[in-house]
Amino acid sequence: MKKILFAAAALLFTLPLAAAEAKTIELKKPQLQKGLPVMQALAQRKSVREFSAKELDIQALSNLLWAASGVNRPDGKRTAPSAMNRQEIDIYVCLKDGAYFYNAPKNILEFAGGTDCRLIGAPVTLLLVADTGKNSERWAAVDTGIVSQNISLFCAGMGLATVPRGQMPAEEFHKALGLKETQKIILNHPVGYTKEALKTEGRK
Amino acid sequence: MKKILFAAAALLFTLPLAAAEAKTIELKKPQLQKGLPVMQALAQRKSVREFSAKELDIQALSNLLWAASGVNRPDGKRTAPSAMNRQEIDIYVCLKDGAYFYNAPKNILEFAGGTDCRLIGAPVTLLLVADTGKNSERWAAVDTGIVSQNISLFCAGMGLATVPRGQMPAEEFHKALGLKETQKIILNHPVGYTKEALKTEGRK
Repeated sequence: MKKILFAAAALLFTLPLAAAEAKTIELKKPQLQKGLPVMQALAQRKSVREFSAKELDIQALSNLLWAASGVNRPDGKRTAPSAMNRQEIDIYVCLKDGAYFYNAPKNILEFAGGTDCRLIGAPVTLLLVADTGKNSERWAAVDTGIVSQNISLFCAGMGLATVPRGQMPAEEFHKALGLKETQKIILNHPVGYTKEALKTEGRK
Repeated sequence: MKKILFAAAALLFTLPLAAAEAKTIELKKPQLQKGLPVMQALAQRKSVREFSAKELDIQALSNLLWAASGVNRPDGKRTAPSAMNRQEIDIYVCLKDGAYFYNAPKNILEFAGGTDCRLIGAPVTLLLVADTGKNSERWAAVDTGIVSQNISLFCAGMGLATVPRGQMPAEEFHKALGLKETQKIILNHPVGYTKEALKTEGRK
């Protein structure tokens, strides 16, 4: 009986933790040799607003997030510089089953809420969130643009499609993600494969 | 006598034009196959504040400016997107003999004044100027960040060094370049070769 009670108590304490853990997604190491030459990526850069239904696999998603603002040096600095190195830009990732916070130092996604914040039909949408408590409005906006162009050039260089957008239900998302008052969702980046790429695949 | 007067008059009208033309620098076509793979460029991206004395040749300068915000499509669109496609970001190039306006559609540099606006010892400095008459302060700042990261990733992918900086005598430069009141110099990007690269060259 004691054993059963102990087991039940253990279950009670471990279940919520296990559920939370199940919502953490371990990302892969980025594939650092991939992509078109940087001048080709710049040549291919364009805004694309239509996407195929094809999902990004975990490796493509990991590459995308690392490119956007991943740690690229042993001292914890990132692919995207920030004014006074305040690192005030966070990325939230909208997937089919909800929104996740990109924890760059740990290279994991942490569940942030069940809301579906994907936009304009893309399989993934990144929300760029600037904390204006850490940098001025101007620098927060500049630093958002820097992360945005990492995403755009990564996509252009890896055969993915994206567009930086301002339009979105920002207040609704802000609430759903439990953001602080000083945090502003400045841009969203729907990301996916182009319809053309799929067509080409079909045709060979 | 009539002939001489005519020749003198012609000279008077053509001389200033010739002088202005002499100050226009024709840029080269960008080398679109160059650079590290985009993921390597992201891996190499860092802020560098020390430069060797080595100058950029005209081809390197042409590649840099095109990467920053050049025309990459027949419809006139650019390597850097801008909110509502307002294209409110201009680039001024500081060289030894003065400042030049980057005319992206014509792929030329137009002389803008004899002031030396190079900063922190770099052979070239780019000034990113946003026209807040064309887009809001926030979008102008975001769009500045986008151009900035084109420069940073181009440099990382082509073995050049750069850093996005806010510090500069902005009022003095604003006057020297004859900018409009709505135009703000938001960032400067010193660009050059690293001291390390030169050392490596010397050592083989």
